[in-house]
Amino acid sequence: MTYCVAMRLSSGLVFVSDSRTNAGVDHISTFRKLHIFHQSDERMLVIQSAGNLATTQSIISLLHRRCLDPERENVLNAASMYDVASLLGETVREVIARDSGANQGSMTDFSCNLLLGGQIKGDGLRLFHIYPQGNFIEATHDTPYFQIGESKYGKPIIDRVLTYNTPLEQAMQCALISMDSTLRSNLSVGLPLDVMIYPADSYSSVQQHRITETHPYFAMISKGWGEGLLSIFGQLPPLKLD
Amino acid sequence: MTYCVAMRLSSGLVFVSDSRTNAGVDHISTFRKLHIFHQSDERMLVIQSAGNLATTQSIISLLHRRCLDPERENVLNAASMYDVASLLGETVREVIARDSGANQGSMTDFSCNLLLGGQIKGDGLRLFHIYPQGNFIEATHDTPYFQIGESKYGKPIIDRVLTYNTPLEQAMQCALISMDSTLRSNLSVGLPLDVMIYPADSYSSVQQHRITETHPYFAMISKGWGEGLLSIFGQLPPLKLD
Repeated sequence: MTYCVAMRLSSGLVFVSDSRTNAGVDHISTFRKLHIFHQSDERMLVIQSAGNLATTQSIISLLHRRCLDPERENVLNAASMYDVASLLGETVREVIARDSGANQGSMTDFSCNLLLGGQIKGDGLRLFHIYPQGNFIEATHDTPYFQIGESKYGKPIIDRVLTYNTPLEQAMQCALISMDSTLRSNLSVGLPLDVMIYPADSYSSVQQHRITETHPYFAMISKGWGEGLLSIFGQLPPLKLD
Repeated sequence: MTYCVAMRLSSGLVFVSDSRTNAGVDHISTFRKLHIFHQSDERMLVIQSAGNLATTQSIISLLHRRCLDPERENVLNAASMYDVASLLGETVREVIARDSGANQGSMTDFSCNLLLGGQIKGDGLRLFHIYPQGNFIEATHDTPYFQIGESKYGKPIIDRVLTYNTPLEQAMQCALISMDSTLRSNLSVGLPLDVMIYPADSYSSVQQHRITETHPYFAMISKGWGEGLLSIFGQLPPLKLD
């Protein structure tokens, strides 16, 4: 499993991904699920992936390889974020068709989900969720975030806290708390985390970090949040049902 | 969908069920999912149900009807909670086999999950989760609660707060907060709630209540919890990722 969340806010984008992959509970490993395509001062694209690892790795490899051929439309020369999302959708369909075509009747799930967030000069900040079918939806003011993978444990806190105008630092705190709840409840989601804040119009990936078990801030808010929850639970008014 | 949670604690049992059923999003209605079989001073059985409503209603109807025949083993004369769980498992299998047998190849999901908690004189407090296959597991000191239906949204708070020795009133608060998080996140879970506290050795169902939208205590802790979350979120230390 996997948990990735991306937020498209008035002042920028926020991304948090775990890195655990598993094929059964006895085959667990660590793979990065946050991928960056960057063209200085012109475009910043962040792709997060969930699903079949062979599928998502192939997609990222093909996207990279095709950037070497400027004659062909690729993620580094596509005119808009919408065009990049379309390209991703096509690549999803291509890889899934290739791998599942050779395995008709197999029970293997070759599907994947992608989140694509970023900015291309002349286009605003945009965030898309690309489905296994290759079609996609876009985040809006009303629904400024998407999740892929194990989304349920970490959804309540986002729904309570996040709005389109939440500042980027607070949004990252919210995403980290959401991830912390998920890490506690689902063994198939695991550290380290890959996180990134993208301030609008910066075309920069400097605010990218890896959070491991010894990361002092993550440990601190994880502990602080847990203690805070217990404290407000302890302050609930005495039960009165009748 | 449905959300039911039951807790088996050192001092008694706690049950909370929602009452929403839906066949598609455009066919929503209210059905009680908490059912009581009571023999004064001798046994108290509480059954919560999730899944196909035709299946769960048939199961409850058959259990009731068979109580009229004292020659036959039924939930009011079975010797132990384990025997009651076995009877429930058999009835689950019987109804699912009957309804799905006549509909071979249909895509309808006839399955259901049941929680059975209670006490029979001479037997301790016990809590079982009966699967659609009719087999079942029992709650223990290590895992003192079970959930059926839409369990994920409301699981983190239970995992943080509940232990085997949590007092019944606190456990009910925890179950109500867990339900509140679920109600907010999943439209297919809805009020009113049927809740019950069963103190060990009481053989009484007096602490049974229905919680509607206008229930003052539920409204108060729902609001208090939401405000408390926002307040501890606001007190998190400033973001420091590097």
